[in-house]
Amino acid sequence: MATNGKATNIVWHKSSVGKLNRQELLEQKGCVLWITGLSGSGKSALACALCQALYSRGKLTYILDGDNIRHGLNRDLSFKAEDRAENIRRIGEVAKLFADAGIICIASVISPYRRDRDACRELLPEGDFIEVFMDVPLQICEARDPKGLYKLARAGKIKGFTGIDDPYEPPLNCELVLPQKGNDCASPCEMAETVISYLEEKGYLLA
Amino acid sequence: MATNGKATNIVWHKSSVGKLNRQELLEQKGCVLWITGLSGSGKSALACALCQALYSRGKLTYILDGDNIRHGLNRDLSFKAEDRAENIRRIGEVAKLFADAGIICIASVISPYRRDRDACRELLPEGDFIEVFMDVPLQICEARDPKGLYKLARAGKIKGFTGIDDPYEPPLNCELVLPQKGNDCASPCEMAETVISYLEEKGYLLA
Repeated sequence: MATNGKATNIVWHKSSVGKLNRQELLEQKGCVLWITGLSGSGKSALACALCQALYSRGKLTYILDGDNIRHGLNRDLSFKAEDRAENIRRIGEVAKLFADAGIICIASVISPYRRDRDACRELLPEGDFIEVFMDVPLQICEARDPKGLYKLARAGKIKGFTGIDDPYEPPLNCELVLPQKGNDCASPCEMAETVISYLEEKGYLLA
Repeated sequence: MATNGKATNIVWHKSSVGKLNRQELLEQKGCVLWITGLSGSGKSALACALCQALYSRGKLTYILDGDNIRHGLNRDLSFKAEDRAENIRRIGEVAKLFADAGIICIASVISPYRRDRDACRELLPEGDFIEVFMDVPLQICEARDPKGLYKLARAGKIKGFTGIDDPYEPPLNCELVLPQKGNDCASPCEMAETVISYLEEKGYLLA
């Protein structure tokens, strides 16, 4: 019986379902849109706008949000340096699984260090890691302060806050910088269309 | 500009894409099929057969395989007790994300401790965690020994091997036990059909 079981098993594995099959089913290609930028730079708003605009085109996306993930998978991690790196590493590994599932995975995380982002890029096949830099000046992010965190950081109540007393390292060579030059007032929807044009051009919206 | 940005953002969030939308797109409901059992009990073969049979019905699945995950997300974990628990916790958290994405997530992991499996069940909405126990006697698993691990464990070259010198706690109240009573020789494909009947009956193959 054991031998029969194994034999059936081997025959079956030949026709196992892979990434290409899933992409065919979904009529899209799996990839990771990695949105990086300061707190308040509009990462979540862009992620949300992208999700909506792609859904209206019948495409399947999933958002990995830095804050939400810290309530689940990464609940054991603090904000000290090595835990920040581990936070990004795990999000990168999960994003890789989602892309392999055929999904357009949208990671929305400050991810301030270049080294950590580059390590995530290395996990993905060439081209499938699409880094989107929210290039919004600190003073604008701080004026928005949607979560009131800059205020706390300036008051010294949060230590090691990105942009205040911890560095943000902008990408040197990323796929997209938003808002595009000369269009500083672009809405999340407009920026989402820029990203979607990129995806279309690169063939990610077809199997 | 900051205010405009925020306002656009808020309006947009209202119509954000949720689990129900993704399920509608996929014409299925997200859930976790948690396949537990000894090494050699046929977890991977069942996972593979399920993936194939569901794909032929146009359904999107994704396999989280204990061994594969240890090469990526869980590469930092050893086999000592607390790391085993953390291994299962993380797989449970990732499976939850996949189910939330609308996918039928198939976790194929020995997961020997009842407490760890139950903790994963608690992460999911009622009904969405479907525990499948591969009820195959140790002597059959050991006779198969597809990876040669039982031999190493018996020779004392692997310590703490489930079934040999570490316990396997069978589920007390799981959704499915396979192979079904009186059908000990069921092939992976036949067992997959049993699981699919369960999914159909519970409405997981419709949006």
